[in-house]
Parts: sequence; C-alpha cells; structure tokens
Amino acid sequence: MNKAIDLNADAGESYGAWNMGDDAGLFPFLSSVNIACGFHAGDPLTMQHAVERAKTHGLGIGAHPSYPDLPGFGRRILEAAPEQVYADVLYQISALGGMCRAAGVPLRHVKAHGALSTRAWTHPETAAAIAQATRDYDPLLPLVALPSTPLESEARRLGVPVVLETFPERAYLQDGRLAPRSMPGSSIHDPHEAARRAVMMVREGRVGAIDGGYFEFEVDTLCIHGDNPNAVQIARSIRAALEDAGVQVRPFVVPQERA
Amino acid sequence: MNKAIDLNADAGESYGAWNMGDDAGLFPFLSSVNIACGFHAGDPLTMQHAVERAKTHGLGIGAHPSYPDLPGFGRRILEAAPEQVYADVLYQISALGGMCRAAGVPLRHVKAHGALSTRAWTHPETAAAIAQATRDYDPLLPLVALPSTPLESEARRLGVPVVLETFPERAYLQDGRLAPRSMPGSSIHDPHEAARRAVMMVREGRVGAIDGGYFEFEVDTLCIHGDNPNAVQIARSIRAALEDAGVQVRPFVVPQERA
Amino acid sequence: MNKAIDLNADAGESYGAWNMGDDAGLFPFLSSVNIACGFHAGDPLTMQHAVERAKTHGLGIGAHPSYPDLPGFGRRILEAAPEQVYADVLYQISALGGMCRAAGVPLRHVKAHGALSTRAWTHPETAAAIAQATRDYDPLLPLVALPSTPLESEARRLGVPVVLETFPERAYLQDGRLAPRSMPGSSIHDPHEAARRAVMMVREGRVGAIDGGYFEFEVDTLCIHGDNPNAVQIARSIRAALEDAGVQVRPFVVPQERA
Amino acid sequence: MNKAIDLNADAGESYGAWNMGDDAGLFPFLSSVNIACGFHAGDPLTMQHAVERAKTHGLGIGAHPSYPDLPGFGRRILEAAPEQVYADVLYQISALGGMCRAAGVPLRHVKAHGALSTRAWTHPETAAAIAQATRDYDPLLPLVALPSTPLESEARRLGVPVVLETFPERAYLQDGRLAPRSMPGSSIHDPHEAARRAVMMVREGRVGAIDGGYFEFEVDTLCIHGDNPNAVQIARSIRAALEDAGVQVRPFVVPQERA
Repeated sequence: MNKAIDLNADAGESYGAWNMGDDAGLFPFLSSVNIACGFHAGDPLTMQHAVERAKTHGLGIGAHPSYPDLPGFGRRILEAAPEQVYADVLYQISALGGMCRAAGVPLRHVKAHGALSTRAWTHPETAAAIAQATRDYDPLLPLVALPSTPLESEARRLGVPVVLETFPERAYLQDGRLAPRSMPGSSIHDPHEAARRAVMMVREGRVGAIDGGYFEFEVDTLCIHGDNPNAVQIARSIRAALEDAGVQVRPFVVPQERA
Repeated sequence: MNKAIDLNADAGESYGAWNMGDDAGLFPFLSSVNIACGFHAGDPLTMQHAVERAKTHGLGIGAHPSYPDLPGFGRRILEAAPEQVYADVLYQISALGGMCRAAGVPLRHVKAHGALSTRAWTHPETAAAIAQATRDYDPLLPLVALPSTPLESEARRLGVPVVLETFPERAYLQDGRLAPRSMPGSSIHDPHEAARRAVMMVREGRVGAIDGGYFEFEVDTLCIHGDNPNAVQIARSIRAALEDAGVQVRPFVVPQERA
Repeated sequence: MNKAIDLNADAGESYGAWNMGDDAGLFPFLSSVNIACGFHAGDPLTMQHAVERAKTHGLGIGAHPSYPDLPGFGRRILEAAPEQVYADVLYQISALGGMCRAAGVPLRHVKAHGALSTRAWTHPETAAAIAQATRDYDPLLPLVALPSTPLESEARRLGVPVVLETFPERAYLQDGRLAPRSMPGSSIHDPHEAARRAVMMVREGRVGAIDGGYFEFEVDTLCIHGDNPNAVQIARSIRAALEDAGVQVRPFVVPQERA
Repeated sequence: MNKAIDLNADAGESYGAWNMGDDAGLFPFLSSVNIACGFHAGDPLTMQHAVERAKTHGLGIGAHPSYPDLPGFGRRILEAAPEQVYADVLYQISALGGMCRAAGVPLRHVKAHGALSTRAWTHPETAAAIAQATRDYDPLLPLVALPSTPLESEARRLGVPVVLETFPERAYLQDGRLAPRSMPGSSIHDPHEAARRAVMMVREGRVGAIDGGYFEFEVDTLCIHGDNPNAVQIARSIRAALEDAGVQVRPFVVPQERA
C-alpha cells in the first residue's frame, strides 16, 4: 500500500542529428529518467543535455546501458560473453556517472536497456555481469529489475540494492511475466486504462492478469514508455491519477530494508 | 635540475580482436600510462585489462581521449565544434575514471590523443574544451600539455593543473615546436641517443634544437612512443640511463606551485 | 534556356530506429534522389527501402557518400588522406550500386554529402579522389558538382561526366560562391521566392546575387533541401512553378556534349 | 575423386591501424580468399589493398559478410531479423563487388563469416536471407556452404550455386557436424596431420570422424584458418601435399551440375 511512487522513463535517446522521444514534453510528469549511454543511442552531447534537463526538473538520473548496437537500437540480443557485458556496462555507467558529476548531480540508479534487459530476465550470467558492474562502480547504486527474474536474484545475491519495476502499459501473465508483444492486448494504449492500472499497481500491489486472476508484486517504480506516439498524454494521465489517488510521485527511496 | 621524472606512454590501444602495442613488455619501464578510451582504440574490455595491468605495476593512470575515429586511429583532425569536443572528452574521461574506480585506483591525469592533441596545440577553443572537461570531471585532475601551446595556456587560465611533457624521441625546433615529421632527423630511433636526450632534458631542462642552439623548458614527464617496433628497447634504455644519472623514475607530482 | 530540368534532394537519411526527412512526402515532387550510404546516415535496410521507394516513383537514384561520421551526420570536415577518401567513396558507391542492381534499377549519379562536398569545393586532392572513385566504379557515371569548383574541374580532367547543380533555396555571391550561412538572407525559406528563383535559374541561367548583380551559370539539376521543416511545401511550390513556366521536370540527361 | 581443389582462407581482416593475419605470407599458397567487408573487419582501404593483392596472385575473390560487430569481430550471434540480415549482407557483397569492379577482377563467391555463418548452419531464415542477398546481387554468384546445413539447402532451394567446403584443421563428427571447439582434439594444429587430412578429403571424399568411422562428403574447397600462429606453415604443408598427390590447386569451378 505505497503512499508514494517513482515514475521513470527512458530519455536521451536521440543521436547526433537524429531526434527521438520528447524529453521536453515528458520530463514534467516523471520523477526519474534512464539516460542512454552511447551504445544504443545517446552521443555524448545528447547525454550531457539530457543530464542538464533532468537536473532542471529535479529528476533522479539513471544510466541505461545497452549492448553495443546503434543500428538495432539495442533491441537485438547479442550473445556477448559475461566479461564483455561487465566491461560494456561498467563503461556506460561510468560515462554517464561522470556526466552527472560534471553537472553536480548524483547518479541514482542503473537500468539495463532493451535486449540486454530481456536477456538478463532469463540468463543469470548476463544478469550477474550487469549487477557486478553496478556494484563495482558504486556499492550503494541501485539496479532497477523486473520482479522474480535472474536480474533481481543476481543483484540481491551480490548485495546490489534492487528497485522493483512494473509497467502500467503492459499486460501481465498470472505468473508475473510480461505478456508477449505478439499477444492481443499485450500493450495498453488508452491513457485512462494505463492510469487506472498504475493506481491499482501502487495502491493494491497487484494488477489483473491477461490470463485470469491477478499478479501480485512489490513495486518501487512505474515505467512509462517514452516511445509511444501519445507518451506525453499517458504520462500526464498516470501522474494525475496517482496524485488524485493521494499517491505522491517522487524519486524512489533505496529500499535497503528489502535488499 | 629534476631529481625525479615521470615516464609515460600510450597503452590499451588494442581493440577487440586486434592487438596493438606491447603493454606487457613496456609497463615495467614506465611510471605512467595514457589509456585509450574507446574513441580511437580501446574497447571496454581492453580498457579494463589495461587498468588492471597498470595497477599491478603501480603506474599512474591517465585517460587518453580522442576524436571519434576508429578507422583513422584518431590521427585525423575532425573539425568538431568545441561543445562536441567538450562532451566527447568528458565522456571518455568518465568512462576510464569509472574503470579506475572499479579497480580501486585513482585516475591521475588526462592527455589528449593524436589529432585532438595536435589541434589543441594551435586551436584555443579546442584546447579550452579539453581543459574544461578535465576540470568539470575533477578540478584537481592534471592535464598533460606540450609547453607553450594553447593547451597549456587554456588549462592554466581555467585553473587546471598542468603537467609539462617533452619527447626524447622527437627533434625540436629552437622555438619549442616539434620538428615536422617530414623533416629528416625529426624522429630519433637509436635507443642510446634517445636515452642521452632524456637525461639531458631532465638534468639540464633543455635539448639541442634541430635548427641550432637549444630549446629550454620545464618538464614533468617524458613521453615514450609505444608504437615503435623497438619501443621496449628504447624504454629500457631511457629508464636505465635516467637511473644511472641518479634520476628517480616515478609518477609525476602534481605541480601545484607552478599552476 | 532549359526546356527541362532535374529536381534532386537527399534521401534515405534515417538510421535504424531514427527517422529523418520525409521521403514519402517529398518523392512525388522530385526527379532524382541522393541516397545516404551508411557513413553519415542510412543503415542497409534504410538504403534498401529508399531505393525501392525511388524506383516506385521512377526517380533517378544517386549515391550520396560521406566522411565516416555518424554522430556528426557527415557535416564535419575530417582531414582524411586522398587515398582514404577514394576507398571510402568507392565503398559507398558500390554498396548503393549493389542495392540498385538487386532492385533492378540503374545507379545514375554520385553526389558527395555535407563536409566531404564542402571540402571538395576547395581541396583539389579530395575532389580528385571522389572523381576517381566515381570513374573507377563506372566511367559513364556522372558526378554532381557545384560550378567553378575543384570538384567540377577535377571531374572534367578525369573524364567523369559532370552534372551542374544550383540551389534555389540558397543565396549566391556574384562570383558564384554560396553566401555563407552566417550571412543574413543566405537561406531562402519562402516557398514562393524559392520557386521564383528556381524558374529564373532554369529559364535564364542566372540568379540575383546577394552582393549585387547576377551570378550566371549552366545548370542540370536543382537541389532542394529535404531537412527544412517545410521541405515538402517548397518542393511542391518549385515543381508547380517550373511546370507552369513550361519547364519539364525529369531526371537529368548526362551532359556528354559539355564534358 | 577430385583431380583439383580450391584452397580458401579469410583475408583483409586488418582494420585501420590494426593488423591481423598475414595476407602477404598466406596468399602464395591459396587459390581463393574471403575478404572482410567492413562489418567485422576491413575498412575500405584495407579491402582495396586485399583485392589488389589477391588480383596480383590470381586468386578467386569472395565477399565475407558478417553481422555488424567490430568489437566482437563478428564472432557473437546477433538476433537480427532476416530482413536486416538480407540488407546487411547485400550491402557488404555490393561494397566488395564494387571494389573488384574498380580493380578489374570478378567477384567470384560469397562466404558468411563467423557467427553469421554459425547461425546459418541451424537457422533457415538466416540462411535464406544470406542466399537471397547473394542471388539478388548476381544470380550466378556461388555461395560457400558447409554440407548438410540449412545454408546449403536454402541456397539450393533459391537456385544459388553452392560451393561445398570442408576444414582440414577441424575434427568432424560422424554425422558431418564439426566437433565442438570445447572437445579435445577438435582442432588440428600439426601441419603434417592437416595436410594428410586435406589429401584424404580431396582424394577419398571422406575423413575420419572423432567419434568413430568416417564422415563422407562432396567438396569443392578446403578452408584454411588464417588466424593460427602457424597458418602460413599449415597452408604451405597442405598445398605441397596436395600437389605431391597429383591434385591441382586452383579456384573452384562453379558446380552447376550439382546445383
């Protein structure tokens, strides 16, 4: 029964001359952002601008490391060895961490992007590499994880603070897995329905499952997809509904009691 | 009349499956290394291994940022805007800085690579961007500079500690500029001659100029080129000659009194 | 006094997940396109789609090679050696040429992009490298050039067919150079004024110069900038005005008589 | 009972300032080369030089396309969609094809590199994408394939001429699969043993299997690994043994009768 929740979204996903997402439109409704680190998006100048914008809005800043795959936007699994994943993730966390340091703001979390994240939901060695890189950069730095995945368990095993995340715009199966995108109804596009689910997730710690019954969970942060055409509208709707329901939107508190 | 001097060389210049340089052979004779940060060489795993090796040898570790130019090894000037240079350099310093942090060793300096360095010898805006990025990452982090260049003066103007460098394997003009590589005798390949010049540079603070007379300077570190076929032999020869002359080889001391 | 003219614009400048330009909106008004080849924009799948779309509209397809500079969109001069420029340009022409071959359409021209083009306007060695690569791929393949530049003269010297280009949206100096972008009025944003200039350029072979008088020239193709917010509107306006003035818009004819 | 055979090896695997392999040492013993196309190795200048060297030695030149993975040297499987594989492979074939065209030599085959090849041995959609790209570039262009893989069957289904390859330096299982590299004895390092196997492969169309009995096959080309430290010695040994056994070493003949 949370009284407060974090709202996060990916950010800084432009690259050079190419724009992506609407950071300016989205940031007012968020409390945290996951900033791309150059491997799937985000050249250094884009990163710097995203950090500065997040600072202006008082958002919690996280690193959003990826497989090295610019043309695939980090959405394709790359069968990289764990030591390569470790070094790639440490490099990216460090790069964004230094940008934060230069801007005078803390780096507050790490969240794996796209296929690297998906891979870590089923591949413990990849999960461990991400968690180890996070810890080696800073033992107090939290890692955002989907509940009940190797990413959560490997992070806990290594003593990395874990921030649990759910997706109000995605349908769940009863066992807690995300409904595959190929399944009808797997994505929620209606801002009001997304908002209703967000409030239920935070207030009741559960959400209706697409295959019947409920999926129950703990949650520290809700993720909003910034790449929907109506992302700003959904973010506004979710934030308003949460505040109407008496839930404060603010950066997550590191959940040390649960770690 | 230095009693001690630093010996630096570039390192970690392999990339993925490709090897370059002989870090294992060279490190025993050095006191500092400039580690490539991924833009001209040095994938994350190579960087990590170079940091670990430098730690094992007790060397001072510096970031060696470059223009983004893998196929050109950072040796081609890119007319990048100062704000791009700033962000690129900050990104690279940060990436290596985090690698050092994970390895439990300090990042001790920054030295621009190749064409970025050459550009900063004549282009004050580029020099200022490099110095500003260095300061914004860490106000106490020293920048290695060729004496009497915009890189030195911009660093001093911005309050960045400056480490002055000379090249025992390169011929100088009387006015302090390096003799152009197209000039006969511009490079010294004989280990004994390189060693003789190194000792003179440290003991007398000057070196014979290729156009007559002497070039006089202050010096904190001597740079050895790691990409010569006989780089290890030259390094061994220089180190032995310095020690025979009673000069201690150790990481430079940040020259705050001169800054 | 041309009775017909070619209208070209850059195309295929998306990259992976990032979109740029409005190929679908622009292609109906063009007769030729310059398709990015992967070095400043245009991953292979984007290239393939651009070729197919150009084929559907019956447009003449050209390769649009660049310096290797994705983060800078090829807009930054890179001091590459002529043999590097040659190999880079030949690689890019070949890549697009094969895409055309697979699609059953001819490759009809080459036009250098951004900073590579700018460099070739003043640096004969770069111009010669571009022209040589074009000729070595196909001795009959024309190269688009700004009149009275080293790019034109080197192409002619090497026997490469030359297609002369002017820009209805750019102001000219009396001596034929483009007015620097820093000069007020250097860019024409009004579709009617751009159309008026286009008709004058084609019908009279001259245009009013920003520093007084007229710049006179031969012209085979007019270039429309696809990256303006109102690019489609300008293209529609120029095409309509040309057709109203009795000028046919069709792919350029290789000007062998002038070569 | 072949009277002649082709000997192929990978080539042009340097990148920018980094060298790999010994093209100069190896080429005299080969009859065909597979030249890297820029995605795992081989910048354009390296490609051009490899083509010129192959031309000098009269070798058959093939394109060696890869997943886009420079830091991983194309050795990591990337879960790319078939349409991405198609476009990437077509791009690379085209790039090398144009280099050949400029050098006045034909492009004689395509051979997938590393993880892309491995993936095509078990994933029919990837195999079909490679074969389709080969055919769309040139319907007569042969594709090198491991016997009894989806790569062979998809190529045949699409009417692409197939060149069958075996590896004298690799141990086989009785069912024709390569012995996994983790299995002791999976790689043959002794030049004499490699040569003995090469002769048996060509003369008898079979080779002893590591799990007993023989693997029987048709063969058009033998592949020599260029990245062994003693690659030149093995190549010399294999070539000498073949010639001693009365087998001519020359570029493969397109096996239309079998297609």
